[in-house]
Amino acid sequence: MSFLDEVKFDANGLVPAIIQDHANGRVLMLGYMNRDTLKQTIEGDRPVLWSRSRRKVWIKGETSGHIQKTKEILYDCDIDTILIKVEQIGPACHTNHRSCFYRRIDKDFTSTEIEPVIEE
Amino acid sequence: MSFLDEVKFDANGLVPAIIQDHANGRVLMLGYMNRDTLKQTIEGDRPVLWSRSRRKVWIKGETSGHIQKTKEILYDCDIDTILIKVEQIGPACHTNHRSCFYRRIDKDFTSTEIEPVIEE
Repeated sequence: MSFLDEVKFDANGLVPAIIQDHANGRVLMLGYMNRDTLKQTIEGDRPVLWSRSRRKVWIKGETSGHIQKTKEILYDCDIDTILIKVEQIGPACHTNHRSCFYRRIDKDFTSTEIEPVIEE
Repeated sequence: MSFLDEVKFDANGLVPAIIQDHANGRVLMLGYMNRDTLKQTIEGDRPVLWSRSRRKVWIKGETSGHIQKTKEILYDCDIDTILIKVEQIGPACHTNHRSCFYRRIDKDFTSTEIEPVIEE
């Protein structure tokens, strides 16, 4: 059985993919892949995502230039989550923050921005 | 509007939560939370997950002792993913690997275990 047959895609045919900065371990974003884009990701040099909102293949940086280069692909015990370590050029987030996780939520439910927007 | 009203839960009422080792940035696992367990997570000291397979509240380590202590909770730009930095006691994975992501997949689709089981 091939790896792709072992992956547990969800009811929508998708598997979540955590994208992590290989240089410092920072979690950058969470994306989703279908069987085709996961195959392309493993065989290629960049994560290939499936945009759930736009319902199309999505390679980060194609328009912004903020590309991701795949360094290592890991997968979890249940084979239902992918972890991709990348070299991230520029901000990963469409808000121009380095990571999509740029806000903290505290016990009293107050929210705090923990990093600045990257000026270019 | 409260934070919990802003979170975009999926069709099953769940939001994915990436669990990361706060000490070294290692991604340990991906879990899911519903509105109630997310609220408990934010207000409490440990991540409270919703087990999709067992359909019940799941606090890691309740039986194994391999608990997680919450250090920081972040959330992403779309408010559809949570990132929880924890202090992890012992292995995070039920396979007794430190992280659930203990296997690498390479371009030729060969799989390699990249870390040993923790002996106790």
